[in-house]
Amino acid sequence: MKRVAFLVLGIGLFCSALPAATAELSSETEACLECHQIYTPGLVGDWEKSRHAKRSLSQALALPESQRRISIENLSDQDGDQLIGCYECHSLNPDKHKDNFDHFGYEINVVVSPEDCRSCHPVEVSQYTGSKKWHALDILTKNPLFDQMVGTITGHGGSVVHSVHPEKGVATDESCYACHGTEVTVDGLKIIDSQLGEIEVPNLQRWPNTGVGRINPDGSRGSCTSCHPRHSFSIEIARKPYTCSQCHLEPDVPAYNVWKESKHGNIVMSGFPKADYGAVPWRPGEDFTAPTCAACHNSLLVNPDGDVIAQRTHNFADRLWVRIFGLPYSHPQPDSGATFLLQNDDGQPLPVSLDGKPASQGLISQKEQSLRQELMTNVCKSCHGSTWAVSHFEKFHKINALADSAVADATAILTKAIEKGLTDPENLFDESLEILWVRHWLFYANSIRMATAMAGPDYSSFKNGWWEIQLNKRQMENELLRLGKNKEPEKKRWFQKK
Amino acid sequence: MKRVAFLVLGIGLFCSALPAATAELSSETEACLECHQIYTPGLVGDWEKSRHAKRSLSQALALPESQRRISIENLSDQDGDQLIGCYECHSLNPDKHKDNFDHFGYEINVVVSPEDCRSCHPVEVSQYTGSKKWHALDILTKNPLFDQMVGTITGHGGSVVHSVHPEKGVATDESCYACHGTEVTVDGLKIIDSQLGEIEVPNLQRWPNTGVGRINPDGSRGSCTSCHPRHSFSIEIARKPYTCSQCHLEPDVPAYNVWKESKHGNIVMSGFPKADYGAVPWRPGEDFTAPTCAACHNSLLVNPDGDVIAQRTHNFADRLWVRIFGLPYSHPQPDSGATFLLQNDDGQPLPVSLDGKPASQGLISQKEQSLRQELMTNVCKSCHGSTWAVSHFEKFHKINALADSAVADATAILTKAIEKGLTDPENLFDESLEILWVRHWLFYANSIRMATAMAGPDYSSFKNGWWEIQLNKRQMENELLRLGKNKEPEKKRWFQKK
Amino acid sequence: MKRVAFLVLGIGLFCSALPAATAELSSETEACLECHQIYTPGLVGDWEKSRHAKRSLSQALALPESQRRISIENLSDQDGDQLIGCYECHSLNPDKHKDNFDHFGYEINVVVSPEDCRSCHPVEVSQYTGSKKWHALDILTKNPLFDQMVGTITGHGGSVVHSVHPEKGVATDESCYACHGTEVTVDGLKIIDSQLGEIEVPNLQRWPNTGVGRINPDGSRGSCTSCHPRHSFSIEIARKPYTCSQCHLEPDVPAYNVWKESKHGNIVMSGFPKADYGAVPWRPGEDFTAPTCAACHNSLLVNPDGDVIAQRTHNFADRLWVRIFGLPYSHPQPDSGATFLLQNDDGQPLPVSLDGKPASQGLISQKEQSLRQELMTNVCKSCHGSTWAVSHFEKFHKINALADSAVADATAILTKAIEKGLTDPENLFDESLEILWVRHWLFYANSIRMATAMAGPDYSSFKNGWWEIQLNKRQMENELLRLGKNKEPEKKRWFQKK
Repeated sequence: MKRVAFLVLGIGLFCSALPAATAELSSETEACLECHQIYTPGLVGDWEKSRHAKRSLSQALALPESQRRISIENLSDQDGDQLIGCYECHSLNPDKHKDNFDHFGYEINVVVSPEDCRSCHPVEVSQYTGSKKWHALDILTKNPLFDQMVGTITGHGGSVVHSVHPEKGVATDESCYACHGTEVTVDGLKIIDSQLGEIEVPNLQRWPNTGVGRINPDGSRGSCTSCHPRHSFSIEIARKPYTCSQCHLEPDVPAYNVWKESKHGNIVMSGFPKADYGAVPWRPGEDFTAPTCAACHNSLLVNPDGDVIAQRTHNFADRLWVRIFGLPYSHPQPDSGATFLLQNDDGQPLPVSLDGKPASQGLISQKEQSLRQELMTNVCKSCHGSTWAVSHFEKFHKINALADSAVADATAILTKAIEKGLTDPENLFDESLEILWVRHWLFYANSIRMATAMAGPDYSSFKNGWWEIQLNKRQMENELLRLGKNKEPEKKRWFQKK
Repeated sequence: MKRVAFLVLGIGLFCSALPAATAELSSETEACLECHQIYTPGLVGDWEKSRHAKRSLSQALALPESQRRISIENLSDQDGDQLIGCYECHSLNPDKHKDNFDHFGYEINVVVSPEDCRSCHPVEVSQYTGSKKWHALDILTKNPLFDQMVGTITGHGGSVVHSVHPEKGVATDESCYACHGTEVTVDGLKIIDSQLGEIEVPNLQRWPNTGVGRINPDGSRGSCTSCHPRHSFSIEIARKPYTCSQCHLEPDVPAYNVWKESKHGNIVMSGFPKADYGAVPWRPGEDFTAPTCAACHNSLLVNPDGDVIAQRTHNFADRLWVRIFGLPYSHPQPDSGATFLLQNDDGQPLPVSLDGKPASQGLISQKEQSLRQELMTNVCKSCHGSTWAVSHFEKFHKINALADSAVADATAILTKAIEKGLTDPENLFDESLEILWVRHWLFYANSIRMATAMAGPDYSSFKNGWWEIQLNKRQMENELLRLGKNKEPEKKRWFQKK
Repeated sequence: MKRVAFLVLGIGLFCSALPAATAELSSETEACLECHQIYTPGLVGDWEKSRHAKRSLSQALALPESQRRISIENLSDQDGDQLIGCYECHSLNPDKHKDNFDHFGYEINVVVSPEDCRSCHPVEVSQYTGSKKWHALDILTKNPLFDQMVGTITGHGGSVVHSVHPEKGVATDESCYACHGTEVTVDGLKIIDSQLGEIEVPNLQRWPNTGVGRINPDGSRGSCTSCHPRHSFSIEIARKPYTCSQCHLEPDVPAYNVWKESKHGNIVMSGFPKADYGAVPWRPGEDFTAPTCAACHNSLLVNPDGDVIAQRTHNFADRLWVRIFGLPYSHPQPDSGATFLLQNDDGQPLPVSLDGKPASQGLISQKEQSLRQELMTNVCKSCHGSTWAVSHFEKFHKINALADSAVADATAILTKAIEKGLTDPENLFDESLEILWVRHWLFYANSIRMATAMAGPDYSSFKNGWWEIQLNKRQMENELLRLGKNKEPEKKRWFQKK
């Protein structure tokens, strides 16, 4: 293998952009930059514009607590005067990192994991740990029903491309698991071409991936870069709706789309009045006048007195009491992010029975629901009078009940087909009538609930809302009729109660 | 009921943001702010950034007329030195407001209506009054055909959720009526929790709502906040396309979508050259180089000499001669916004017969059409040569005729089904073939017309355009075939001419 | 005909915006501006903000070569001190321009063509000439298969509106040809109303149009204004994604949509860190930290040393090795933009056989594919490590193969229907089963490939991805079943190998 000596170029250019006096780069990071500023200038330039490149740990700790973006109380064995450069993050916990490799004399991890970020952001990582996002991959793979759905749609478990192609797992990685995360493993080393000639690097499998539930080569879960992307790690980007929109998109999770067409979206997209997306803490009225996803769901908000309106959280369930998407019926939030452990009262791996009854166990109590609703209502009240906020959620609960009853209608049609032996419940996702049924709740009922939750009405009317749900119901009825005439037999009764 | 004393907090912080000398807050508004700046800081911050918080009536009247945003000629019994604060708007016309209530010693209206805004903006409110937007709720409720459509889709009149749930009206309020407006009524008082403890407030029904045809507790119609949202009342936001996009969205009214993919949208979204969305009057070339919805449809435009290119209007029909959406066929604009009064020559509550003939009465004359086309063409000519503008509308008229003939094709299929007794015309929106027929005109023909009107071609090709219309025609033909084999009988003949 | 004298108005206002000293307007352009700044202020204002209005040819040539936006080496017979005004562009090559006309004493071309732009931008025009975009109209009209598709969908060749309306060609012009370009011809002169009264102008047919393959009245092809719109000719607009999104939109070419939901789109849309879209050359890391379409596909990129990462190109195939949209199967890029000359090994006008085998001739070699992949990978490496970039394209190739095999499945269903005489292959776009088949590859397989190409996963999952492809496959199977029962006979065998 050819190894090429470091090129010491452009260091002057780079140094001029460095911050002042006591905050400085480690010698290791300087070595990284010598090459990477020339060979990956986009990456280095992104980092140069970040707070990591401008503020040392000591400087960060000198800020009042409410303004800090780190959550360590004090320095442990860290050098407080150092800036947070390449090496500071890519060299952590090498023993745990199966992706650690010798890179021009330095022991480097390819993938920086939440457990590495924990060095300076322990509270945020702890909030995230165990959340639904942290479990996002598990939720798909450890729940046999969702695993069947994923496999049927994208092919790893028997689908349109199943018999045809040996690489079928890639389709899952590039669709469902792109958001939910892959398990990134290391299969030894491989030699690749780089601008410095051939180099030896870890042979990562199911990579690149930035899904929120990614399993990392150090065994940890999650990917901070999902929302704080690339090397700017920007809170501004995370607070902008485009971040969330990458996964929370129509037709299955139209959160971004609904928000965009709501008054909130209207005002934010208009850019009037101009908002400050970088302020910590974040002050409604002062820093922004209409919320993005982050404002309502996870940012630290304070009033003009500095009193906390809502604490920062990286568990997005903390301000949510009802779960309105991804499943046939709305239901109380689960106790834990490990939703694959839930069972409905019929023993199926779902939080709700197929007739709409929430599971007796594993969901939060009425009291906890009320507490979380109050938490969110307080956020609303930052900008809305109490009547507005209270009435809004009254309507929201009524709409959830209506959407649930529309799902019950569709489920009754499917159940009839199963009972008549016209649909095989062994796999609930692979026959026409089943696909229409899934569409009923996964797209249309979800859209209707979200449209009211965030007051973006088109998604409850003509766009994946009541219009589609009544058309889909007729299509299911016609499909049942067709199946009855064809008398296509089916085998089992998945729905039957035990 | 527990009443809590005012908290006098943060007043210093707030005062620093106040405007200078002769323009000042009323003592009532100061009282509002004492609490609300702490308890609803987002709301107060929004207002603080508004012109209302910075400019008194006298200061506004001191501007040259073309630069004014108010339309009173002089002060009546108003205090010209006062800023326009909370109390100035929320205390008007208390006798008419059924939502007026005692709020810590002040008589406050919850809902500020256009009739309240009329105090300073009489011309704008008069323009709006009687327009299609002003009648937006009436158009759905007073036209039996549209009422049937709304009821069938969203459930208040017999639909997928009709028999299931007592709260079915909420589905309509949160979908169709979210844009068209609800009738907001007051059902006595109720006690709610606020940050100051329990307070007694009007028990508003079908609220919150910001639909353009809302019927307010003072009996007035409309909602200025639909387009000038929340407490900034910003002309900048109203002129940005996101405002209009809240309701004028695909699939039924893809105005925003078509504009966004047009050259106009391309340039505006790019933000180059930078535009000034707050300038009054608005100067093409100087303040902006590509139009948003407002530029073409309602803003006051002047040329570099200050000559008026187009007068400001809040009746959006003023520059429109053809009506291209919401109905099967294109047709001349109606005389009045009260379109529920229209009847086609077959006595149906439509502006056009089902075979495409415009109603003999109630539509604007050819002469009026020409005048309005000239008005709009002048707006085009601000940026385009005369040949361009003239040729553009020649194509537009041809496309309307083509889209209309595609609708006639689909209507012929439906008519055949009705004549054979295979479809029941009693309700035109609840059977599969009918739903396909509605989709033909409400989504696809509309899209095709709009795509040419604003030169955003994808909505006339693969996205809800000719592609979908030819597929839908085949689906209607297949459905007719299926119905014929099933020999499902139907009862009445809605289409038959009398 | 009434002719009105020039109005010499507002010239002072205008002059104040002019650039300094040596760069000046021609007297002809000054004459244009006398009227047009009053009568088309939006157009003039747009130009005034452009580089054309601020920089003479000599000033442009004085810049270092890498910073130039013109590509002439030196002045030929041009006046180097003149700014580039109306007359400089609209008077070129009058002998070739059938749209040249006498306009108040000046010989003016209505349409400025790439051959006119060539005067100062010869390299860019040469790059564009012969590309797929340059041939965009030919590709639709000279390939009998695509011509049939266009005709069937939009009506010029026998479709839903075919028998009904004489103006059917307009539907094609305003849909497919709006992006691909029309052939703009001149049918003598006509008299139109202008703000100066009646004037005589060329009677242009199939105009306005800004399609990329437009055939111009001077016989040239292309339209620079497609991407450098109106009179700002802005590189900033061309580099923003909205430009490309006008045509590269879901469902058929969801490039913009996929990018928008990718990390690239997320960061760019967020506007953090702030990017400079006007810098030439363009420096990753310095000028931008996440790419728009232009960054990866055609802009001149340099590293901090000024070394070229990728040369500027106006042939968008230069950095592409696989062609992933517009056709059933992915395949190597064609040798030439004249794709209508391609034939698959069965003699059909396609680059790939219907069973997926690439044509033996007319596609680039494996070596050329590797070279182009390396070119693009170098762009990726501006911001990504080598492992990331290499692994990304490994996945991309696997997904292309998977999507191709899904298309083969659908094609097998259609072939079976044709072989049984249930579908008539004479026209492959006009029967239900055929339309479902087209949707399979034109929408869904394309989306899946693009979703991986740019890492925007929703378009390979629920939004036009694997979800839709497996539903569509079942719909095709059901349609085949239905056709078999109906025993509808068909005539010919288009698919049969010769």
